[in-house]
Amino acid sequence: MSVEGVHALVRRTHEERVLRVLREHGALSRGQIAAKVGLSRTTLSEITGDLLSRGAVVVVDTDASLRAGSGRPAELLTLDPSSGQFLGVDLGHTRVRIAVADAAHEVMAAGHQTYGPDTGWPERVAIAFDLIDDVGTGSGVSFRALQGVGVGVAGPQPAEPAVAQAFRERFGTTVIADNNTRFAALAEAITDGPDLQDVLYIRLADGIGGGLVVGGRLVTGGHGVAGEFGHVPAFVPSAGAEPDACRCGRRGCLETVASVPAVLRTCRRRGLAVRTAEDLEAALRRGDPVAAAVLDEAADAVGQVLAAAALVLDPTQIVVGGRLTRCWPGVVDRVASTIAERAGTATPRVVRAARLGDEDGALGAIAALYRQTPLLAGYH
Amino acid sequence: MSVEGVHALVRRTHEERVLRVLREHGALSRGQIAAKVGLSRTTLSEITGDLLSRGAVVVVDTDASLRAGSGRPAELLTLDPSSGQFLGVDLGHTRVRIAVADAAHEVMAAGHQTYGPDTGWPERVAIAFDLIDDVGTGSGVSFRALQGVGVGVAGPQPAEPAVAQAFRERFGTTVIADNNTRFAALAEAITDGPDLQDVLYIRLADGIGGGLVVGGRLVTGGHGVAGEFGHVPAFVPSAGAEPDACRCGRRGCLETVASVPAVLRTCRRRGLAVRTAEDLEAALRRGDPVAAAVLDEAADAVGQVLAAAALVLDPTQIVVGGRLTRCWPGVVDRVASTIAERAGTATPRVVRAARLGDEDGALGAIAALYRQTPLLAGYH
Repeated sequence: MSVEGVHALVRRTHEERVLRVLREHGALSRGQIAAKVGLSRTTLSEITGDLLSRGAVVVVDTDASLRAGSGRPAELLTLDPSSGQFLGVDLGHTRVRIAVADAAHEVMAAGHQTYGPDTGWPERVAIAFDLIDDVGTGSGVSFRALQGVGVGVAGPQPAEPAVAQAFRERFGTTVIADNNTRFAALAEAITDGPDLQDVLYIRLADGIGGGLVVGGRLVTGGHGVAGEFGHVPAFVPSAGAEPDACRCGRRGCLETVASVPAVLRTCRRRGLAVRTAEDLEAALRRGDPVAAAVLDEAADAVGQVLAAAALVLDPTQIVVGGRLTRCWPGVVDRVASTIAERAGTATPRVVRAARLGDEDGALGAIAALYRQTPLLAGYH
Repeated sequence: MSVEGVHALVRRTHEERVLRVLREHGALSRGQIAAKVGLSRTTLSEITGDLLSRGAVVVVDTDASLRAGSGRPAELLTLDPSSGQFLGVDLGHTRVRIAVADAAHEVMAAGHQTYGPDTGWPERVAIAFDLIDDVGTGSGVSFRALQGVGVGVAGPQPAEPAVAQAFRERFGTTVIADNNTRFAALAEAITDGPDLQDVLYIRLADGIGGGLVVGGRLVTGGHGVAGEFGHVPAFVPSAGAEPDACRCGRRGCLETVASVPAVLRTCRRRGLAVRTAEDLEAALRRGDPVAAAVLDEAADAVGQVLAAAALVLDPTQIVVGGRLTRCWPGVVDRVASTIAERAGTATPRVVRAARLGDEDGALGAIAALYRQTPLLAGYH
């Protein structure tokens, strides 16, 4: 990095910190901002001057109670929400979801559209573009001030580069693309505040995916496929000698035990006629013993896999989400007790249900855009 | 961070980059340094002036072939190796090892001293201090220019803060302390160059420990205990209903299957009289079928645990070290094939034996000192 690059980095870091305190605190005077970010008044004036001239920040008010040295009432600055929009897109296996947020982190509009699981990537992208147009028309959001697009893409084979390129051509702005479950992990991690450092996230749905935050950073892995909890072999005492075949080509993966389709299949094998997650939910509500036993086995397998990961990664928080946990909230308690049993309780570790719903991927994509400062983007 | 802090960071980053090119390239002219680090001549002059005045860099020669604009031969600068020493200490369960390196990364002296496994931490530290004095006397290293001390401490309960404090009081310099296996992981990771991003390291010895490099950073975890591969439950088909008790209080941990004492115990249970790692090595060399079978089971269990970690973390390299791998090099191949079977081969992944010997912890502690720039120390 050249010296100019380093200076730009420092400048951008300052700018980002000013924007962050404005996001967190609303309207502040220059003196208040300087105190909060630890910059001199002179340096801060340069930065706010630049932000004001670019329209990223506006003067909203003057506060006579905050007089500057001259006796003039201090101007209060705030983010101009209309100055920037951030678009989050989650291209899942069977539907696309989008969310649009402003620079103040308020979600302005959202929507979703379903498609078949065999839909190709170019078609999924085209459906997403139509949805974005519809949501824009319906909400009055013009996307003229789009600051960036975050696109989450369903794994496991990374389709991100081609998809990112399509969005870049369409919107002519910064596009970041990553696995959608990884974005969901980020969204869940920051529901407890921006400072969570070590989090494991698993999603039990049509498939099983996951994401990791290690030392405050989202982990991508050496080939972009970190977080494949679904393909860790799971040992199920009742499974017998030949575990189920997995779509990855191996046998006995966690996904063949604890995904929604796997749980339904095991229930049917044991004589319980369930076809959908709703059927399973109803069976659990009426106390069906087969459904309860199958779900317990699934939870134990999930706990087993997470316990091993917890011993290796020492997280402070483990989040369990996805449709299966919404069928029966008790599944999270069962996972938690398996983890405690197999990984011990020497270090405190919160195991909790996910808080966000199906919008997690799109919100995580937006969160990743907000965090795209050079420092967080892996500068070294 | 204040603006002064940011400026100091930038300055220190520049300085570190200048020192790095001198480490890598030996003697260079100012013009050559400027070109390699991408700094202007003016900025570089300030930095080299400061480094020269502090004695960290010296003029070794003038090179008439590299004339500056004025026609004067260019001065060649190089690191002054005597200007800085870095001390690495590895306080293991039964011995302390130390190594001293200069600013040019050359190991100047090394040594070790054994103690009993029940030796308390204050005693271990006292033994280390005596060893450091002895090594200093024997090698002529005075430790007057000590730039920092890295201390690796055997886990699992972190004794680092108290140990670090003792070294800080003794040497009055920067002290960093961490788990010794984690330092060994760092040392192994950088044997392939400084840029390895995603590495799993496991050590099969009296205990089983490990370390992770994720995104180029050594992982500590939320409570400083990341890398506990040894306490992941391992499923061993021949183990029966009641797996062995582990020192952690649980049962069936990998350490009860694949540590050196565990392998010896299992061999003895099956009628093979082996007491030490050397006995085991001899039995393997003469083709004893019991020893071979027990080692295969141990390798399979290790592969099982590493496969799960590989699916979650997506490393590019997995390193298997420790005394057990030196008993029988084939153990690494067996681990590799278990990982391939259970985690697939969709992403390329090197599984290799550790290259360093018992000095790995002390060398890793020194490597961590070299890497203690503010950026690598987790600045954000």
